[in-house]
Amino acid sequence: MSKPKNAFYAQSGGVTAVINASACGVIETARANKDKIGKIYAGRNGIIGALHEELIDTSKESVKTIAGLRYTPAGAFGSCRYKLKSLKENRAEYERLIDVFKAHNIGYFFYNGGGDSADTCLKISQLSKKSGVPIQAIHIPKTVDNDLPLTDCCPGFGSVAKYIAVSAREASYDVASMCETSTKVFVLEVMGRHAGWIAAAGGLVADGANDIPVVILFPEVPFKKKEFIARVKQKVKQYGYVTIVVSEGVRDYRDRFLADAGTTDAFGHAQLGGVAPVVANLVRQATGYKYHWGVADYMQRSARHIASKTDVEHAYAVGKKAVEYALQGKNSVMVTIDRKKTAKYSWTTGEVALSKVANKEKMMPKSFISKDGFGITKKCRDYLLPLINGEDYPPYKNGMPEYVRIKGVMVSKKLTEPFDV
Amino acid sequence: MSKPKNAFYAQSGGVTAVINASACGVIETARANKDKIGKIYAGRNGIIGALHEELIDTSKESVKTIAGLRYTPAGAFGSCRYKLKSLKENRAEYERLIDVFKAHNIGYFFYNGGGDSADTCLKISQLSKKSGVPIQAIHIPKTVDNDLPLTDCCPGFGSVAKYIAVSAREASYDVASMCETSTKVFVLEVMGRHAGWIAAAGGLVADGANDIPVVILFPEVPFKKKEFIARVKQKVKQYGYVTIVVSEGVRDYRDRFLADAGTTDAFGHAQLGGVAPVVANLVRQATGYKYHWGVADYMQRSARHIASKTDVEHAYAVGKKAVEYALQGKNSVMVTIDRKKTAKYSWTTGEVALSKVANKEKMMPKSFISKDGFGITKKCRDYLLPLINGEDYPPYKNGMPEYVRIKGVMVSKKLTEPFDV
Repeated sequence: MSKPKNAFYAQSGGVTAVINASACGVIETARANKDKIGKIYAGRNGIIGALHEELIDTSKESVKTIAGLRYTPAGAFGSCRYKLKSLKENRAEYERLIDVFKAHNIGYFFYNGGGDSADTCLKISQLSKKSGVPIQAIHIPKTVDNDLPLTDCCPGFGSVAKYIAVSAREASYDVASMCETSTKVFVLEVMGRHAGWIAAAGGLVADGANDIPVVILFPEVPFKKKEFIARVKQKVKQYGYVTIVVSEGVRDYRDRFLADAGTTDAFGHAQLGGVAPVVANLVRQATGYKYHWGVADYMQRSARHIASKTDVEHAYAVGKKAVEYALQGKNSVMVTIDRKKTAKYSWTTGEVALSKVANKEKMMPKSFISKDGFGITKKCRDYLLPLINGEDYPPYKNGMPEYVRIKGVMVSKKLTEPFDV
Repeated sequence: MSKPKNAFYAQSGGVTAVINASACGVIETARANKDKIGKIYAGRNGIIGALHEELIDTSKESVKTIAGLRYTPAGAFGSCRYKLKSLKENRAEYERLIDVFKAHNIGYFFYNGGGDSADTCLKISQLSKKSGVPIQAIHIPKTVDNDLPLTDCCPGFGSVAKYIAVSAREASYDVASMCETSTKVFVLEVMGRHAGWIAAAGGLVADGANDIPVVILFPEVPFKKKEFIARVKQKVKQYGYVTIVVSEGVRDYRDRFLADAGTTDAFGHAQLGGVAPVVANLVRQATGYKYHWGVADYMQRSARHIASKTDVEHAYAVGKKAVEYALQGKNSVMVTIDRKKTAKYSWTTGEVALSKVANKEKMMPKSFISKDGFGITKKCRDYLLPLINGEDYPPYKNGMPEYVRIKGVMVSKKLTEPFDV
């Protein structure tokens, strides 16, 4: 019997609180199938690691370290924002990948990323066929933006949503307790350049037991200042305060980012900051209310300390399933999370052809945004709640989460030519 | 035997993740001593509630609600930023308080706040003596700023410190995993206008198992741009990235807030935001490094989900002890947290005369800041670590923390005259 093929695994694009849980799923499942799958080589800093032939030998990592990836945020092997050009524009890149995979007896390509990476994954599989170097390419979904199509949700999103919902609820309690004499408006800026999934999580702040006034600014809804200010005033009149959750990608009716709306500092530099201070300032000018604003930035997507248990389970499962699919001979597919039609939330993994996924963005459906454009519907709430359900705390030592770091032993290079990206 | 005196309890100033735990300590301990202490009336929105005779009857709250205060952030009874003027300037305010207390048979005044409130507490006790309306005034320390003197630490601080340390560590993992091709500098703005205690918590990001590059900007250290940029460059050269934790109160050598350093937007408005975007922009201009920045704002002080267990225990204990001191006949004191001289961290509560506390701020000692001004010393780390130790998670329901809200039944007013503040 020939030596089993090795596998290549890479993390791509913005990292999340649970992408390493997918890595954990891949590596633990592969280790359990040593007769059929050889070593797992991880790209150092994502696909660039493959182009540079910088491969991390995960077999050198202890069982404990690999298990620890399940509760360690960010990308343990490094990630990158690097989209391969089209085959026409830079065929050399794809050929280089095939060369590296061939040199290291790699027969499986597991790519852990969003829409752009799905496209890369598809092209690898197409080219490998043509090159006579058979490589099974399986995409493992990951994105805090939750914008991949044909999967119920994307691992990484549930934990950001939980972080935003929890943080905004806590901050709302804070503002509520001081609004009579102090801050009346709290603005929280969240991620999501194109799709408002993360902003929608702000809608979970309020529920039956928590009558909290929240106004959401979605990227899908063109910003209308007058209506917005009216809504803010109405909430403050009714509750004494309001919490505003604003997506970084909110745009005006001319489709310009609000954060870029012509503001520069005294020296003419483009304005420094995000959209939160812009929105806060608009409110102040129109109402005089005292405000505070926060920007969740990287904290939101790395907050493993408050990760959603469901999200962690999803992330592990898609990694595990990717290996199982590979062992079943599947190719050119993305693993999906499929929601079952049960009264109580339940889910399973599934598959979809990569050709149907690549380069498509899933926006918030209209039915998820309330008629006035400033909130979420019950349908959206029913969709979101299971995704933030459950806690999955990391271990702590001396008061701090004890995240793991890999040794990162590199595989010896076999190709003589370097490759510039 | 005469009817036992009632007590007044109020929350003052900026709220914290654990101030309600102090309220819980006060109320539970008073309830256990019903023969000696009557009802606990809480000021609606702090001391203003007393001036307005808006008293919340905490006896109407269930045992379960009061127990729930232990894990509920912010000020359940409302707080305010309202410093009573001096006796000379506005004696009427103090007399009004005495009138309200007299009308409601209040013999105990528990004030839960920072330095300003300690001063108010002192004056109440002085005036009550002169007025022949005996009121025992006990101060319960609370401030995220950790700047009260003569107590080892202030309840509220440990939890903010834990939040900042955990969040900055997580964000550092994020940046580390993408720095080769993306963001190299992450700037996190934290609270602390005058004292750098919260910023110091950024120094806990790194430890033996986590060699993470952190640069801290303290309000105690005048900002020197050249040295700062050099340090940032050096860290990026060595590690590939750097995390900057900046106190909102950092000032330049002319003692101007960096956040106010002349920046206005294109319309001439004073610049909108905090110091994080200012620092990030300085770095970009000097180095060209790609950056991200976050502002922890209210999230940091309301983050009960990641509160320090030690801090929660401190907060409960100072509330409990305040009632015990009152029952022992003490007056004009603040409860303190005293660190014992043991190898393993241990503590007890103590007392200090209010006259020694009022209107004093405890800055970071020089021995806590590293020589270069950008980090913390081992002494500081040894001080901080016990304060963030332990986790004390709130209960969750449907993925969200289940914080309690009080019913807030108001006591019938007895005074005929209203009082304007």
